[in-house]
Formats: sequence, C-alpha cells, structure tokens
Amino acid sequence: MRIVVANVNTTEAVTEAIRQQAVKVASDTTEIVAVTPDFGAGSVEGNFESYLAAVAVMDRVSRLEEPFDAVVLAGFGEHGKEGLAELFDVPVVDITEAAAHTACLIGRRYAVVTSLRRTLGQIHDRLQLIGLTGRCAALRAAEIPVLELEADEDRAATRIVEEARLAVEDDGADVILLGCAGMAGLAERVEAEVGVPVVDGVAAAVSLAEALVNQNLTTSKRAYPTPQPKPLKGWPLG
Amino acid sequence: MRIVVANVNTTEAVTEAIRQQAVKVASDTTEIVAVTPDFGAGSVEGNFESYLAAVAVMDRVSRLEEPFDAVVLAGFGEHGKEGLAELFDVPVVDITEAAAHTACLIGRRYAVVTSLRRTLGQIHDRLQLIGLTGRCAALRAAEIPVLELEADEDRAATRIVEEARLAVEDDGADVILLGCAGMAGLAERVEAEVGVPVVDGVAAAVSLAEALVNQNLTTSKRAYPTPQPKPLKGWPLG
Amino acid sequence: MRIVVANVNTTEAVTEAIRQQAVKVASDTTEIVAVTPDFGAGSVEGNFESYLAAVAVMDRVSRLEEPFDAVVLAGFGEHGKEGLAELFDVPVVDITEAAAHTACLIGRRYAVVTSLRRTLGQIHDRLQLIGLTGRCAALRAAEIPVLELEADEDRAATRIVEEARLAVEDDGADVILLGCAGMAGLAERVEAEVGVPVVDGVAAAVSLAEALVNQNLTTSKRAYPTPQPKPLKGWPLG
Amino acid sequence: MRIVVANVNTTEAVTEAIRQQAVKVASDTTEIVAVTPDFGAGSVEGNFESYLAAVAVMDRVSRLEEPFDAVVLAGFGEHGKEGLAELFDVPVVDITEAAAHTACLIGRRYAVVTSLRRTLGQIHDRLQLIGLTGRCAALRAAEIPVLELEADEDRAATRIVEEARLAVEDDGADVILLGCAGMAGLAERVEAEVGVPVVDGVAAAVSLAEALVNQNLTTSKRAYPTPQPKPLKGWPLG
Amino acid sequence: MRIVVANVNTTEAVTEAIRQQAVKVASDTTEIVAVTPDFGAGSVEGNFESYLAAVAVMDRVSRLEEPFDAVVLAGFGEHGKEGLAELFDVPVVDITEAAAHTACLIGRRYAVVTSLRRTLGQIHDRLQLIGLTGRCAALRAAEIPVLELEADEDRAATRIVEEARLAVEDDGADVILLGCAGMAGLAERVEAEVGVPVVDGVAAAVSLAEALVNQNLTTSKRAYPTPQPKPLKGWPLG
Amino acid sequence: MRIVVANVNTTEAVTEAIRQQAVKVASDTTEIVAVTPDFGAGSVEGNFESYLAAVAVMDRVSRLEEPFDAVVLAGFGEHGKEGLAELFDVPVVDITEAAAHTACLIGRRYAVVTSLRRTLGQIHDRLQLIGLTGRCAALRAAEIPVLELEADEDRAATRIVEEARLAVEDDGADVILLGCAGMAGLAERVEAEVGVPVVDGVAAAVSLAEALVNQNLTTSKRAYPTPQPKPLKGWPLG
Repeated sequence: MRIVVANVNTTEAVTEAIRQQAVKVASDTTEIVAVTPDFGAGSVEGNFESYLAAVAVMDRVSRLEEPFDAVVLAGFGEHGKEGLAELFDVPVVDITEAAAHTACLIGRRYAVVTSLRRTLGQIHDRLQLIGLTGRCAALRAAEIPVLELEADEDRAATRIVEEARLAVEDDGADVILLGCAGMAGLAERVEAEVGVPVVDGVAAAVSLAEALVNQNLTTSKRAYPTPQPKPLKGWPLG
Repeated sequence: MRIVVANVNTTEAVTEAIRQQAVKVASDTTEIVAVTPDFGAGSVEGNFESYLAAVAVMDRVSRLEEPFDAVVLAGFGEHGKEGLAELFDVPVVDITEAAAHTACLIGRRYAVVTSLRRTLGQIHDRLQLIGLTGRCAALRAAEIPVLELEADEDRAATRIVEEARLAVEDDGADVILLGCAGMAGLAERVEAEVGVPVVDGVAAAVSLAEALVNQNLTTSKRAYPTPQPKPLKGWPLG
Repeated sequence: MRIVVANVNTTEAVTEAIRQQAVKVASDTTEIVAVTPDFGAGSVEGNFESYLAAVAVMDRVSRLEEPFDAVVLAGFGEHGKEGLAELFDVPVVDITEAAAHTACLIGRRYAVVTSLRRTLGQIHDRLQLIGLTGRCAALRAAEIPVLELEADEDRAATRIVEEARLAVEDDGADVILLGCAGMAGLAERVEAEVGVPVVDGVAAAVSLAEALVNQNLTTSKRAYPTPQPKPLKGWPLG
Repeated sequence: MRIVVANVNTTEAVTEAIRQQAVKVASDTTEIVAVTPDFGAGSVEGNFESYLAAVAVMDRVSRLEEPFDAVVLAGFGEHGKEGLAELFDVPVVDITEAAAHTACLIGRRYAVVTSLRRTLGQIHDRLQLIGLTGRCAALRAAEIPVLELEADEDRAATRIVEEARLAVEDDGADVILLGCAGMAGLAERVEAEVGVPVVDGVAAAVSLAEALVNQNLTTSKRAYPTPQPKPLKGWPLG
Repeated sequence: MRIVVANVNTTEAVTEAIRQQAVKVASDTTEIVAVTPDFGAGSVEGNFESYLAAVAVMDRVSRLEEPFDAVVLAGFGEHGKEGLAELFDVPVVDITEAAAHTACLIGRRYAVVTSLRRTLGQIHDRLQLIGLTGRCAALRAAEIPVLELEADEDRAATRIVEEARLAVEDDGADVILLGCAGMAGLAERVEAEVGVPVVDGVAAAVSLAEALVNQNLTTSKRAYPTPQPKPLKGWPLG
Repeated sequence: MRIVVANVNTTEAVTEAIRQQAVKVASDTTEIVAVTPDFGAGSVEGNFESYLAAVAVMDRVSRLEEPFDAVVLAGFGEHGKEGLAELFDVPVVDITEAAAHTACLIGRRYAVVTSLRRTLGQIHDRLQLIGLTGRCAALRAAEIPVLELEADEDRAATRIVEEARLAVEDDGADVILLGCAGMAGLAERVEAEVGVPVVDGVAAAVSLAEALVNQNLTTSKRAYPTPQPKPLKGWPLG
C-alpha cells in the first residue's frame, strides 16, 4: 500500500525526518510518500500557522497525481484532519489522534510532552475533539522551539525526559506521547530513561493507517461528506 | 467603536445581509465594517471549505488598514476563531460561541437549527470546544443549502420552524439558535411561531463584542499568544 | 433602558459600590437602579445566608413599582437566579454566569478568586449548573471577609494578586474572575499586575444585560415558567 | 434516634402523608418528627416557591427546641440542603439525593417521574449537583399538580405508570424514582405494574438518615461550614 | 434480616475483622454471615487477583444453603458486583459504591486512602462505573500491603492520617474513604486526627444493605438479568 | 509475530470462526494461536458468565508454553483485559476497545449492534472504562443469542442490518461496531447494506495488536503492574 505522510511545515529537513520515522515502522510492502506544503510556516507553533498548514496540506495532497491508500497528517495538535477526511475516501490519520488512541491501548493515562507551551491550548482542543481528555493526565512543554529540537538533540532529550518524569511522578501518567512530529527519533531514549512506554505520533499514525487499510476500512462519508462540486475562488492556492 | 464583521464565504450578497443584521443590533456609536474573503467557497458547507474560509478571513482581516476594536467571525460552526485571536489583541467573537453563550443566559437548553445536515458535525465540534454541549438539546438541519435560504425565504422559514418545533417538543430545547449567518433576518418570525426565544448569531456576536469593548476586555494573550515573528512562505495569500 | 442591580447583602455601602461599578460600564442611555434587600446578612458568606438572600432579593425586586428591562443579581456564587427568572419576563443575569461566559469569550480557562474559602463550594455549584466547570482552572480564596475588602483595599488587592498569580502560573488560568461583588473596583489593578484579563462580575452582568435587551431577548418561559397564581402564606416577607 | 422530616409546602395533609411514609420505613427505635413550614406555597412547583420553601424549612427547623439526630428535606428537586447542612451538625438528607443514590445501588440507570413538567428543570439541577445525571435515563412528568395527586390517587397512579413504562421501554431506565414527596404511597403499585424497582424519596431518605446515624457519621463541616455568628436582619422570619 | 458479608481474600483473620466491623454497625435484629472464598489470593492487590476473587466470591456465596436478604462484597475496588447482582435477587452492595454514595450524602468531595498504589487504577475504574468520579478529590495510597495493615496498626494509622491530611489540605477533600476492607477499625482514629468524617466501606455497605431491605428494594433484574439456565463447564469451581 | 487470540466461551466452533477471522486480516508473517477456555459458559451473555470467562482466559493463556507477542481478548464487552495486562508484558488488546478506537479513527460517532439486550449494560461499562462513551451514538441489540448467530446467518444479518440502519438514521451513528465475536463474518454484508463502515472487533484487535508490536510498544507496567509473587490457593484452576 502507499501512504502519504504530510508534514505541516515548509521545512524539508523535517519532512525527511518524518519520512524516515514512517519508513522505519512501516511494513516492507508499504510505500511512504512524504510531502511538504508549498506555503506556510517553517515551523507550526500556534493556531494561525496551524490553520494555514491545514489548508496548505489539503492543497498539496489534493494535487498529488498518483493514487494512495491512506493519508497521515504529521503535525501534532494541528488542524486539518476533518478537511482531509472530506476530500478523500481513504483513511486519514492525524498523529495526535493516532498517538492518543495507541496510548489508551497500552496504559491508563497518558501525558503529552510537546515543544512550546504556546501550543498546549491547541493540543488540548484536538484531544477534546477526539474525546480522550478524560484519559489525559497532563500536557507539558519542554519549551524548546520545533526547529531547535534537531539542532541540539541532547538538550531536547534531556528536557523532554524531565517533563516526562514529572508527568509520571506528579501527574500520574503511565504512557508518554511525544507531542511534536519533530521529536520522532527520541522515543526510545525517553522510554529508556523514564521507564514507561513512549508513543511517537508518526509511528503510531503509520501503523494505524496500515491497520485500517488491512481491514479495508475507509473514512465514513456519513461523518465526513465529500465536498459538493462548486466553484472555489482561488483554489488550489499552491 | 469599530467592529469588523467577517463573512466566511465569497458571496457579497451574504456579506451585505450580515452587515445589515449587525447594523440593526449595534449601538449608534458603533461602526460596522463588513468584509468578504478574497478566496474560498461561495457558501461554506463543510470542513474543507471552512478551513479555507478560516485562512481567507485571517488573510482579509489582517490586511485591513484602519484600526478596529473587535472582530466578529460571521460563520456558524466555522473554523478560525483561535487564529484570529492570536493575530489580534482586540476581542474576537465567533457567532457560534456568541449564540451559545447568549442562549445559556436566557434559557436552560438550546437547540441549533442549521442549513444542511452535512454541517452538523463541525457545529458539534465548535460547541464541544466552547464547552457547552452539556446544554445543547439538539442539532437539527432544515436541509436547505445556504444560498437558497434567501432565494426562498418563506420556504426557509417554514422548514426552520418545523425543525425548531421538534427541538422544543421532542428534544427539550427552550431556546433556538439559528445556525447559519444567512438566516439572519428570520429570528423574529421563528420566535413568533415557535414561542421560545430565538438567537441570531450575528446579532449575538455584535452585542457581545460591544459588551467586551465596553468592559475594556481584550483577548487573553496567555490563551492565544501572538504569533512569533517568522517568515511565512506565500503569506498573505490574497 | 433601566436595569435593576440587586445587591444580595443588607449593607448599603456595598450596594452603592455595586451601583457605581454598574454605572461605570453602562451605556449613557442605561439607567441603573440599585436595590438592597430588606432582610438577611450584612455579608453573604455561605449557603444559609445565600438562600436567605435569594428570597430577600426576590422579595425586594418584586415590590419595585417602576418597570425595568433587566435584572442583575449582584452576588457572586449566590442562589436565586432561577427564581427571579420565573418571576419576571425580562432577562435576569447572575454575575457568576455573566463573568464565566464573558471569560470564555476572551480566554481558554478562567480562575475565580473570591473572598473566603468557605464560599468555594457554592461557587462551584453555580458554575456546574451553568455548565462551565470544564473551562474552570481553579477556584481560589484570598481569605478576606467580604466587608474587609473595602476596609483595606491595598491588602485586599495584594492578596487577590497573589492568588491570581498562582491561578495563572500553577493552575493554567488565562483569565481571572473576581469572585465577589465587593471586589468591583479592583479589576484594573489586578490585571495590571498579573498580566491576564480580569473580569468583574457586575460589569460583565450589566454589559450582558444590555446586550440581551439590545437583541430584544427575554427569559425563556419554557425554561423558567411564570409561577402559577396561588396563595402564598406570608409572602411578601419584606 | 429522632429524625426531623420537613415538608416543603404549607399543606398539613401533605406533612401527615409524609410522616406516615417515614414512620412506615423507620426502625422501631426511630422517632419521626414531621414539621410544616410557617410560610410559603401550599404546593411547591417551581424555583421561586422552592427558594421560599428552602428558607421556610431552615426557619422552621432551626426553631425546634428538642434535639434531633438527622434532618430529612422532604421536597423532591427542591432547594435548601446546603443551607440546612451548614446550620446543623447532624446529617441532612434531601429526598432527591436519597432516591438517586439508592437507585444507583440496585440498578444501572434510573428515571424520575414527577408531578409537573415545569419542575423538571430544577430536578435536573439537583441531580447535576449530586453528580448523578450520568446515570439518569430520563426525567418525565405525569402532568398532575402536587395537590391533585392525593385527590385522585387512581388517576395519579395510572399516569405515573404510563410515564414509568415509557421510561423503561423507550429511555432504558431500570429503576423508577417517584419525583414528588406527595407520591409517597404509590411506590408498590407502580412497581407491581411496571416490573422494575420503584424508589420513594421519603422512604429512601429516612433509611439513609438512619444508616448515617448508625455509622456515627455527621455532616462534613469542611464541606458545609457552620455560619459565622453575625447579626441577620429580620431572621428568623417565621 | 440476614446479610452475607463476603471477604475477597482467603485470609480467615481478615474475614473475622470484617465480620466484627459489620456486627458493630448492624442493627440488633440483623444477623451477619461472613464468608471466605475457597480459592484465590491471601490479599487482593491487583486486577488479576481481583477477577479471581470475583469468581471465588460468586462461587462461595452461590453455595450457601441458608437464605439471606442481602450480600455485601467486602473488597474495596474489587470486581464482582455485577455478577453477584445477576445471580441473586436480593440487594448486592459493594463496599466501594457504599462508601462513595455515603460520602456524597455528608460532604462535597471525597478522597480514598487505600493500601498500595498498584490498586489505584482499579479503584478508579470502580468509581467511574459508579459514576462518582466527579466528586472524587483524590485517590491516595499509604503504601502498606493489605496484610501488614493489621500487623502494625499504629504505623498504618500514621501513614493513613498523613495521606488523608494531604487529601484534605492539598486536594480539597472533605470526607475520607478508607479504601481497604482491612482498614475497618481505623475510621475513628483517622477522623479524630484529620477532622473530617471518615467512611469505612464495610460499615457503609452493611448500613446501606439494611436500608435497602427495610425499603423492600431488590436488585433491578432489568439492569442485572438472572443468568439464563445453561450448562457451565467446571462450575462451581470451589 | 505470534498473536494469541482467546475466545471467551467454551465452544470450539466459535474459537475456529474467530481464528479464521483473525487469520484473514493478519499479515502473512503473523501466526495466530486461537485458544478456548477450559471452563465456563458455551456462550457468554452476562456478567456472571463474563467474570468466569475472564478467569478462564487468564488461566488458559497463562498455561501456554510457547512465547507470544500479543494477546487478543476476543469477547465483546467482556471482563478480563486488566488482569491479562497485569499477567503479561506484551500488549493485550480487548476487541471492545479495539473496535471503539478503530471506529473513532474513521468516523465521528459509532453504534454497537450486539446479540442480546441483556449484555448492553456490560458493553456500556467497558466503553465507559475506555473513555469513549462520548462518541457512542447507541447500543443496540439484534436479540439473537450468540450461538444462533451462526446457525442462521441470514436471519442474523437481517436483524443486524435493521438495527444498524436505525442506529444511523435515528441515533446519528456513522460507523457500526459488530458487538459480538460471533458476528465476525458479517461485516462486509452489513456495510454493503447500510452504507457506513462496519468494524469487526476481532479484525480490529488483531490489526491493532500488530500495530503495537510493530512499534515495539508493550503494556505499561505502571498502569498494569505485574502481580506480586504470592501463593494463590487453587490456582491455576484449569
């Protein structure tokens, strides 16, 4: 099967890191197509940028020429899943929901450790729409900007481990979600140090996309009806 | 004070109807500036179109040259409030939240009567983020497309009254929200026939925006932090 | 329009302070009629006193001879709104609900800072009935009795600022509600020191009452039916 | 032990019916003292009357001269429990909460069948404060005024059975609560016809009051602090 | 009446302690029959052991030859209530639900102090099924194994008091539940030191069972239908 | 990888049907080991039988000699997941949670169509523990006993389709869960007739188990701690 993994920011290096993470977890017979939006922010760290990303991802994916079997929206806490689910019949998996559902299968209460505190509100919103805030023990931020996560991976890991420990010890979490697509490579390290399972959203989303395709499940069009054919001024934007 | 009222679709006639509704409820000293997005759908009836509208409205309002005291997002159940709230310091009032909060002041349980069933999911999402689903008795659709609401106002009123009655009799609602900016002129008529208060989102949002400005209240930047200065590829889009 | 603002305690000085706060935020064309109950406690700091106040306010307002367009119940966390809403057709706005709904328009999560810890339970009850506990980050008390708030305003402000800061830093609040009608004059000062918007209940309620009247909205009699005509032993009590 | 059972309306015949119901379920060693408020409505069918009753009951019970071990507030869906709990150290049991907690012990989801639809809102409020709306399948009204329940007991029973059946068949209830102190004698009859357990609030409250006294449990003063000594204008009212 | 009180572990000394606690609170006319399961763990401290206990208790109680009027499941946070409720027509009261419902009658928010942290998850699950997590302030563990509670009662009391104090001071609890049948004798001591009511589950369950029997209430068979007659391989197991 | 799929009833034919369903969806490199409990009911249709099944499955799986990578608990709405999760380090996936989480990825609101109404309560309990009742539109029963599902597959399909249609049309569901392991083969047929995605629990659980193993995720031992070594009277039972 072919899974499109869409980065939400315009930074090609992040797209490549996400692609590698996706490939690592995917089955041998799964082809990963990683795409970068044509417009928007180099790192998405707020709702304004996230809405822009939602449109940029819809724009980019809808212009793909080859067919695909599933779409992964690879931005943690970002907008856009409902729009993609309307545009396509294939399953669309958002890494936020993928990580949260996965965590619920292996633990009781999860915590999210993300990049910047300024994004906690929108992460909370996504979890609320998913309906899994009741199993969320805490939302924590390492206070490291997205693009610095890879610049100094050691510092990033140290800060994430600190917050993850507090989430486990003080907040009662028993699973940690890495709340940023750019943290893709750090799961094992954090897990080794904190001692509870750590879920990476990109890996979770690719695995769940495969699971859905293997079950021949598609997006419910009753839930996400295909847009009616109508002229759209200025669309596509890219 | 000056309030910007942003239509979410590209249809100027709808913008004009919204403007008239806003002017009707506003104080004499309030100036209404109604704007139409430069791109997007002629009527917003789904998440894909709504995300596009969110960005188009942010694009349009951020290019306004004159200062303003508040922004009203005049699309019922549409995306975008959080982005606008980040971009500006002045209060941003979404007509969905305005109508829901207003209904809670005068009744116990409200119902929404909107245009098309296909938009119920996203209206539900907005109400869930607002935190007022617990007081929502029902979401109902008249199954009339947005642009036909004004084409045949009698038929629209008849259908809305039918659904509103069911919401009151069967679902236990005691206040009705008109779930579409294009229904602006119908509130009195529905109220007269159904016998419970009917809240129009545009009127509610303009009134609440005035209330916030009168209290010198602004958007909490702790909740909606101003975007960090960073280059945005392709922005503004319009 | 004419808005009746009802103090819940029998202390005329508090009524006057509330009146001034109401006048300050009201439009030029709004007349504020402040009333004091004829019986009850000099300060309402518990459910027993609050139930007494609820009846005293209903008693007082129902004996008013001039017509009015709205009623503001100016006691934070106090009982009575549902009774007033049954007695009158005009909108009745409780300052607790007014403050909570207003906070939700400009932020994500609010905290209440009130006078005494002993009143937190009843404040929680009111917020639960309103349906907005899900957006409440914390209920905190400055531990200053109501009537001492004005006696030593500096100490009051200092203590309120301390608790407000903890609500923001530790509890994640991004808007503060002053949880006592007697704190009316302190909003600006607390806002300046804590750096998030501060909502005063009296100002919020007067503004929302104006907003409702401007929209021609009245209490839903389906939600709050007018009492049936029947003899009431001993009523009115005042 | 001595249990005070307080009727909420001023009709002595209802007090006597409640007393008989209380005596029927109480242990041999329990003395029932039934009291009638000195002011208020002959039947309580709304919030205005209910607030008045709350104060009248507090007034009446606080003037009792003999000591007592528990208080039962015998009005379904009525205000006042929190005030009584502040005034006295002994347990105070409201028949609404007694019935709801009792139902949860023997079934999964309960329904309330009360007198008039106009009281459903306040019953809902009480259940929400108790925290058991999640186990409430339905609130239904027989549409028979309180004082007619005893005038024509057959008609009352017939109507209550009809609504109880709908609650079981359509709403999924498996226990029925009789939502009015005046329905005290009808439980067995309804149970025989509908086939699920029927809980009478007065019986439930007396039994739970006995249970609390037997466990030496008293009201938590941390939850319901004793009113501070302060002059109360016009109190007691009776 | 005769009440069967079923210990969940195989330790006879615990059964005897539970029996004494039950006898202490029961009416003179109530006979307590305490039973010990024939298989399972000497102390139940986890879900695996708890499921085993659920079956062992059903096995043991269903082999009783004398009739009984109610069953008390005397394991805090343990599985099994729903199975017992299906097997018998008489009321079945689980000490977890008994303690939680009792606490809600006398306070606003309760906390549980149990033996080991490893059992907090299953206690949370039971409270969630009961529907009273909304009134739970905290779940805390003294970190003392069940069988050591009686070995060194002083140390147990000290640790429980410490956690109970934190629950009251830091978490806002106003009633404490002793979250382990083996803590039966410590309620008075903890109450004296912490200053809020302390509920013992066994006492609460026996009292509520008496209350239900006194009201002639039985298990709702609509909620817990009697098992259909069918061959069961290997049953009974004991 | 090797996945153990545990039937909850003692009927070998059901085990074989479940095994075939599991094999159908599993990857080529996944080995399915289907097991049948040694004691219990031929069909599990209630809590008593379900608790027995929980223990029988734990008993059976813990006596397996070959290693395995995941366990699937193949009973819809049945007890036991938490016990299995304590006993083993590998992921344990219950088909109820698997189906519910899967449904949430492809739709907004799911409905369950199960065998008998008498099992709806326990299905509701499981969904509540999972935390996904907020996204559940309805629980419906075809009123066909488990063992008759395969005896007359046409009748079963007809009845399931009828209930599924009502769930979509009346209750607002947009995804259907087949609420019984014995319905394994009917998903495609129901989907074709009802027009929304239909999730089979066994297929979902096997796919999710594969997804977890592919991500190297194991059960959080912080959430489900390994039982402490202690003598267990009579264990194993089989």
